Amino acid sequence: MRLSKLVGRRIKEDPKDAKTVSHKFLVRGGYVRPVSAGIYSLLPTGKRVIAKIEAIIREEMNKIDGQEVLMPVVLPAELWEESGRYGSVGAELLRFSDRNNKPMILGMTHEEAVVHLARTELTSYRQLPAMLYQIQTKYRDEARPRAGLIRVREFTMKDAYSFHTDQADLEKYYARCHEAYVRIFQRLGMKNVLSIEANSGMMGGAVSHEFMALCDCGEDTIFYSPDRQYRANREVATAAWKFEKPAAALPLEKVHTPNCKTIEEVAGFLKVQPENTGKVVFYQNAITGELICALIRGDFEVNESKLANAAQAPELKFADDESIRKAGCVPGFASIINIDASKMKMIVDRSVAESGNLVVGANEADYHYINFNYERDCDTAASLVTDIATVREGDPCPVTGEPLKMERGIEVGNIFQLGTKYSAPMGCNYLDVNGKSHPMIMGCYGIGVGRAMASVIEQSCDDYGPIWPISIAPWQVEVVAIGYDKPEIKAAADKIYNDLQAAGVEVLFDDRGEKPGFMFSDADLLGIPFRVVVSPKTMAENCAEFRRRDCRDAERIALDAVNNIAVEAVNKEMALYQ
Amino acid sequence: MRLSKLVGRRIKEDPKDAKTVSHKFLVRGGYVRPVSAGIYSLLPTGKRVIAKIEAIIREEMNKIDGQEVLMPVVLPAELWEESGRYGSVGAELLRFSDRNNKPMILGMTHEEAVVHLARTELTSYRQLPAMLYQIQTKYRDEARPRAGLIRVREFTMKDAYSFHTDQADLEKYYARCHEAYVRIFQRLGMKNVLSIEANSGMMGGAVSHEFMALCDCGEDTIFYSPDRQYRANREVATAAWKFEKPAAALPLEKVHTPNCKTIEEVAGFLKVQPENTGKVVFYQNAITGELICALIRGDFEVNESKLANAAQAPELKFADDESIRKAGCVPGFASIINIDASKMKMIVDRSVAESGNLVVGANEADYHYINFNYERDCDTAASLVTDIATVREGDPCPVTGEPLKMERGIEVGNIFQLGTKYSAPMGCNYLDVNGKSHPMIMGCYGIGVGRAMASVIEQSCDDYGPIWPISIAPWQVEVVAIGYDKPEIKAAADKIYNDLQAAGVEVLFDDRGEKPGFMFSDADLLGIPFRVVVSPKTMAENCAEFRRRDCRDAERIALDAVNNIAVEAVNKEMALYQ
Repeated sequence: MRLSKLVGRRIKEDPKDAKTVSHKFLVRGGYVRPVSAGIYSLLPTGKRVIAKIEAIIREEMNKIDGQEVLMPVVLPAELWEESGRYGSVGAELLRFSDRNNKPMILGMTHEEAVVHLARTELTSYRQLPAMLYQIQTKYRDEARPRAGLIRVREFTMKDAYSFHTDQADLEKYYARCHEAYVRIFQRLGMKNVLSIEANSGMMGGAVSHEFMALCDCGEDTIFYSPDRQYRANREVATAAWKFEKPAAALPLEKVHTPNCKTIEEVAGFLKVQPENTGKVVFYQNAITGELICALIRGDFEVNESKLANAAQAPELKFADDESIRKAGCVPGFASIINIDASKMKMIVDRSVAESGNLVVGANEADYHYINFNYERDCDTAASLVTDIATVREGDPCPVTGEPLKMERGIEVGNIFQLGTKYSAPMGCNYLDVNGKSHPMIMGCYGIGVGRAMASVIEQSCDDYGPIWPISIAPWQVEVVAIGYDKPEIKAAADKIYNDLQAAGVEVLFDDRGEKPGFMFSDADLLGIPFRVVVSPKTMAENCAEFRRRDCRDAERIALDAVNNIAVEAVNKEMALYQ
Repeated sequence: MRLSKLVGRRIKEDPKDAKTVSHKFLVRGGYVRPVSAGIYSLLPTGKRVIAKIEAIIREEMNKIDGQEVLMPVVLPAELWEESGRYGSVGAELLRFSDRNNKPMILGMTHEEAVVHLARTELTSYRQLPAMLYQIQTKYRDEARPRAGLIRVREFTMKDAYSFHTDQADLEKYYARCHEAYVRIFQRLGMKNVLSIEANSGMMGGAVSHEFMALCDCGEDTIFYSPDRQYRANREVATAAWKFEKPAAALPLEKVHTPNCKTIEEVAGFLKVQPENTGKVVFYQNAITGELICALIRGDFEVNESKLANAAQAPELKFADDESIRKAGCVPGFASIINIDASKMKMIVDRSVAESGNLVVGANEADYHYINFNYERDCDTAASLVTDIATVREGDPCPVTGEPLKMERGIEVGNIFQLGTKYSAPMGCNYLDVNGKSHPMIMGCYGIGVGRAMASVIEQSCDDYGPIWPISIAPWQVEVVAIGYDKPEIKAAADKIYNDLQAAGVEVLFDDRGEKPGFMFSDADLLGIPFRVVVSPKTMAENCAEFRRRDCRDAERIALDAVNNIAVEAVNKEMALYQ
């Protein structure tokens, strides 16, 4: 490809709204262009990267016996009604009507669509296990698209679905898919991808893992033990907290605490530590409006994902004051004492249930109770004690006991053991060897293709642009001709370009004859692994300059050695990602 | 691939709603499954065929300097407002609002989206010509999806767009693309594809061609001269009709014609021929409601495409009685005499303007006028004379004069010279060598991928299933083992399967051990070009059976020759489609 003909400008300035390096470089390098909020077009250079990512994913999916299909973008709402998700998923599911007023949706994930296929095509235990996958366009009506390709509305995803006769077979396949994912991210050149325990969320199912590309701009927070034996998303991470009940439960007593609103103020005024206090936080089930009362020790924060799971609420919001008052509580001073548990779901963190003599609210401005003890002072029959606390860096690892470390990451893949969440309600059954019908056991496995491209940049770039792993680089070698208007430069550069192409190397040829600095800036933004520069200076020595994108040192090589050296370098580098 | 593991049943019965062979075989062979009206999932076998079609298209697009991009499915309505199509395109454009009430559409074609890309990326004459293409999902909210993959709502399309400095350059590229299309359809194994003159319709532009796969179930009608010099869609086809004015225009006279409603009744009653009559047909512009009066000789039918073009109406409907009455006409007896031309657009076919002494309606039940002569009796200043007649088989070819032939076809591709229809209103300009700005001259070029698959079946099948050209066959060779439970059969068949795969052949292996007839029916539905059968009978002779899908004769070949013979046959056949 001649750069003079390549469609997609390189841009000097960072786009105004870009906060992450991948967003900046994807726009500046001419890989993508925004069309609407969270909706992008891929320019030819971006499309080349994406095509290579897809090819690697496809290869690895085929290796684990995946069969590629293609399901629709536009789906009838009735399929999502069958699974129950038409009602339970929020506004990110785009709903509309076709010209005959039939309710339709844009697929944001395809469990329903694949079950619709599987339930007629897979009927016998003899056909199982089976895995179907697709690489396909999805739409999620995100409220706040951000960070370029990391959180978008329209995106390409590889989504795979497996079908099994029993849980053991699912687990076996799940492990195989986990290995395939490790290989995929390695082949995509991601340096630091961690698979972690995750929250299954709206997908349902018991066990799930996320593959996290570690980087500072990641939206997710990951806790892990120093030896990485334990790795979990903040949404589900727990710790080996040790709580202790006091030797004796002291008498409950109301005390005056003027102008004390926060835990810090109360603790300071009463001369106790935050861990000697308890706090109530009111949420509501965002779908049903049901009030949820979370009680946790003052030194902890409520983990909304754990709370949502405990309360079986698909989505949470903070409770409004009116709902809190309706339940007989005073917003801001709510107490856990004498609360009417019939008006809410009460979830109590272990930190409260396993401590004692705590300071808690009195349901009255400027007053608190001291010496609250959960078992004595609360309607234990009406409340659920569980872990709803957010882990903090340094908390003891639940496996090794060591202080947990914390990092941020981008979720580039996820795998779920779904069980029968979709197969049971949608009648996706198989006949066993005795002719008896059972719902299939399912797994599902996703990778965001565009997000993977962005994540590679986040992990592999310098101040000037991406440093593409050769496995997904838009081209393998860039040839830059300085002084292309000079016949001897033109002849030498054209020859290198043609020879390399003839040798099967993917070459981008900067034939524009611009100033060197201008062309090198573009080359940095294009991030091609190897660069060959021909200039009057190198030509004077009958040489070209050869260098890697990932180091600043260049070497002079003889013109007639360029082809062999470049081909060998490409092959050696490619082999690293096989 | 082992057939025992392939997802996608073969089905014995034709689907109830299937009227075309491609629809029947695509469902029965396990290639596709309907999800909603006009919305299909591709099963693994169908996906394999589609992937090969896409690869061939991609290769040919790259050969003519195409650069692949990917534009979104979901587009902001504002882009379509810029081009004016948001208002002018009907209900087939799916319009909806996102969660922030921003109007959006589902892309049914991507002129606006590609111009949005091009107008920032292409700015100088030096970058032109350029061609961008994508292979992408589109949605068209068809009122009446039909015929399986031939007329669907969601579909995959290759759409390409070229940008030029001038018309001559567009025409040069247009011809190159025409050649590429001829190669594509040849490589897809289509036997009878005709490129014909077409109606540009909602795409705009002056010149366009359709590539028609000739077959009886086609939705389009094609007229062509016996030597194929002239080829046109019925929508634009014309003929070298010769009309004649009478020696003298006789006096206009109102006559009583009791109970004569149709042209045949009037002509019979007055003892004249249909060609001595004229008829008025009222239409309305479907968008604006404007009344359109079409006047044509009684022996012709109005061609609605020609009429819509003449009336500059993007879409037509028959006029309702109330609108006809409002214009002062009597529905069913409308006359062209004393009509108020200010209340409608009046379009007169040449057949009327160039004949004379015709019988026409009197705007009154049971009466007609005789001796109508257009120039004498009509407001010629207020009416447009042009060709709005539908060609009939046998009409004289406008080029050669010979009687035109008629056939039906499926439109598998189209190419348009768009000119500045999109670039001018959307500000897609380039700077010429003098720094002066001009709108780019554009072309666009489409191929329906799924429709191509269906069209191949329409042209290449027998009573039992598709006969795939090897270039797009789901697999190249099918190995069928009869008596797979017998160790010697298993050993021989497994060896053939493994050897062929090792030789790089794509093999489907029927290892199910079902009855021969059952397995052969499935093989016919899968339509794989070559078949190797191992059975106790062939094994007795140390042989296998080898045959082509496209002929019923089988030959016995020695077991140890199978690999060489099959590989050679595959290579020879593949070479036909390079």
